[in-house]
Amino acid sequence: MRVMYEDMVKQFERILTKHGFDPESAADAASIFAGNSMAGVYSHGLNRFPRVVSYLEKGEIAPDAAPTCEMGMGAIERWDGHRGFGPLNARRAMDRACDLAEEYGVGVVALGNNNHWMRGGSYGWQAADRGFIGICWSNTCPNMPAWGGKDKKIGNNPFVMAIPRSSGDHVVIDCAMSQFSYGKMEDCRLKGQKLSVPGGYDSEGRLSTDPAEIEKTQRVLPMGYWKGSGISIALDLIATVLAGGNSVSRIGTLGDEVGLTQIMIAIAPGKFNSVELTDSVVNEIVADIKTSVPAQEGGQVYYPGERALKSIQENRRLGIPVVEEIWNAVLAM
Amino acid sequence: MRVMYEDMVKQFERILTKHGFDPESAADAASIFAGNSMAGVYSHGLNRFPRVVSYLEKGEIAPDAAPTCEMGMGAIERWDGHRGFGPLNARRAMDRACDLAEEYGVGVVALGNNNHWMRGGSYGWQAADRGFIGICWSNTCPNMPAWGGKDKKIGNNPFVMAIPRSSGDHVVIDCAMSQFSYGKMEDCRLKGQKLSVPGGYDSEGRLSTDPAEIEKTQRVLPMGYWKGSGISIALDLIATVLAGGNSVSRIGTLGDEVGLTQIMIAIAPGKFNSVELTDSVVNEIVADIKTSVPAQEGGQVYYPGERALKSIQENRRLGIPVVEEIWNAVLAM
Repeated sequence: MRVMYEDMVKQFERILTKHGFDPESAADAASIFAGNSMAGVYSHGLNRFPRVVSYLEKGEIAPDAAPTCEMGMGAIERWDGHRGFGPLNARRAMDRACDLAEEYGVGVVALGNNNHWMRGGSYGWQAADRGFIGICWSNTCPNMPAWGGKDKKIGNNPFVMAIPRSSGDHVVIDCAMSQFSYGKMEDCRLKGQKLSVPGGYDSEGRLSTDPAEIEKTQRVLPMGYWKGSGISIALDLIATVLAGGNSVSRIGTLGDEVGLTQIMIAIAPGKFNSVELTDSVVNEIVADIKTSVPAQEGGQVYYPGERALKSIQENRRLGIPVVEEIWNAVLAM
Repeated sequence: MRVMYEDMVKQFERILTKHGFDPESAADAASIFAGNSMAGVYSHGLNRFPRVVSYLEKGEIAPDAAPTCEMGMGAIERWDGHRGFGPLNARRAMDRACDLAEEYGVGVVALGNNNHWMRGGSYGWQAADRGFIGICWSNTCPNMPAWGGKDKKIGNNPFVMAIPRSSGDHVVIDCAMSQFSYGKMEDCRLKGQKLSVPGGYDSEGRLSTDPAEIEKTQRVLPMGYWKGSGISIALDLIATVLAGGNSVSRIGTLGDEVGLTQIMIAIAPGKFNSVELTDSVVNEIVADIKTSVPAQEGGQVYYPGERALKSIQENRRLGIPVVEEIWNAVLAM
C-alpha cells in the first residue's frame, strides 16, 4: 500500500494539532515526519509516529515548548530545547547554525534538553538546501556496549555530514554508530532474514548475524568494532560538554529516551568558492566514485545520499509505501 | 631494544637539519616524530622516518616552505601548505584554528597542498593541550575501494576528535576509515598472525582475516563496511571544497602520496564552562564507561586515548621500543 506525501502530511498535522501543536508547528512537524518516510527512512517517519504520539500523551514531549538561546559567544551558541518536539527544535538549531555560518563562516549550535530528532539526515539536507556544509549529531539512550564491555553503556549516536550541490542532489551521510539499528534488526527478524554482516553477539558470546539472538543479548556491535565505540564516546562528550546537556549515561536514568543532546555545525563554502566551483569539485569527486569497478556483476557504487534521493523521487511520484496496519492506526487517531 | 625519547629527537633533528630544515623547524619536526613513536604509533614515528627522508631527497617535501593564509572570513580560513613538511604545517594550522576559536568560539582552518601529517591524533592532543575540543581529518591517496566497488577509489582518511581535560589525560579518538591500516596488516603478516576481524577480501572475493591475501587484492575493508565508505567520501568532499585542495582522486595522479588536504576545527568549551565544569562532565562520562562489565574475564574497557597515554608514560620512563634495523639505518643517515 502506498500513501501520497500530501495525504500523510495532512493526517500527521491533524493528529499533532489535536495534541496541542499550534497550526504552524503542526504543519512543520508533519512535513518532517512524512519527509522521513518519503526519503525511505520509514523507521523514523510513519513507523515512529505512534510512539511520538504516546510520548505526547504521557507528557514527555511538550508540544508548545520553544527552544531558547542560553549562551552565545561569537559563532557558537548553547540552546535549551525545553523537552519540546525534537525535530522542530533540531531544525531551528540547524537553521541558527546556518545563520551563524553566514556571519562568521562557521556556526555551532549545541542543543540540550531536546527530544529525539528522528532522522538526523534531514538536518544535513536542510543545511545543504541553504548552500552550507552541515555536520551534526545526537546522543541517545545507552543502547550499545562499549568495545570490550558487555552491558549497554554508550549510544549509537547518529552522525551526519552533508555537502551541498545547487541541483539539490546533495551528498549526505547519515549513520548511527552501531552496525545496524534495532529497527533494521527487527525488520530482518520479521522477514526471517539474517543480517548481511555480523551485527552483535549471540548468547554464547560469538559474533552473530541472527537478529533474534542479538535482540536477546542486546550486545549490539559498534560499526568497525572498537572504532565506532570510540567515535560514539567522543560524540557524546563533545555534545554534553558544549550543550551542558544530558550525557548518554544520564539519559539512561530518565526512563524513556528523552532529554537528548545535539550538535549542529554549519560551514559556508560560499565564503571561498562560487556555487559553480563548489558544484564542480563535488561533481568531479562523485563522478570518479561512480566509475568504480563493481564488486558484484551488474552492481554499482552509490554515493552517500544517492539512494535517499531515489526514494524521494519515486515515493513522491508513486506514493510512500506504508505498513497498512500502522497507517490504519494513524487514521484512527 | 628501547631508545630514550631525547636521543630519538636528537637523531631526527640532526638528519632533518642535514636535509635543509632550519634549527627551529628541525627541533619541532623531530619532536613530533619521536612523540608519535612515544605514543605507541610506531608506524608514523620512527618507522615512517626513512620514507620521509626519501621524499625530502626526491624533492617532494620542501623543507623550507612555510604555510600561508590564502583567504579568511570570520572564523574560517584557507591555507596553502606549499608542499612543505606535513606535520609542521598541520600543527601550525591547528594552532591557528585554536586562535580563531579563542576569538569566535570556533575556528576552522582548511589546509591544502600539504604533505602527510603522520599521526593525526597529535593535532587532537595539541588542541586539547590548549583546552580546546579538536576535530580534524586528512584525506589520503586512493587506498581503498568504495563500498560495492573493487578498485581503490577512496582514501582511508583519518579522522580525529579530542576532548580536553586539564590533567592532560585527554580523550582522543584517532581512526582511519579502513578497518586496518596497511601498516597493521604488514605487522600481522610478519608475525604470522591473522587479523582479529575481517579486514578485506581475498582473491576469491570473500571477506578475509588473512593479511597477505588482502595485501594481494588491495581490497581493504572500510570500517563498518558501507558506513566507513560513506564517511570517507564525505570527509574528502568537505576538505577538498573548503581548502580548494587536491581530492583523494587527484592525489592518486601525483605518483607519491603528496599534496594532501586537511581540515582543523577547534571549539572552545571555555566560552560556556569553567575548566572545572568541563573536567567534571568528561570525568563522569569516562568513569561510567570504565564501569562496563568486561566482555572477557579480567578484561577492561578503555576510553579513547587511554592506551596512548599509557604508552607515553611507559615509553618516557623505559625508552621507546624500536625495530633495531630501522634505528640503525637512522643512525647511519
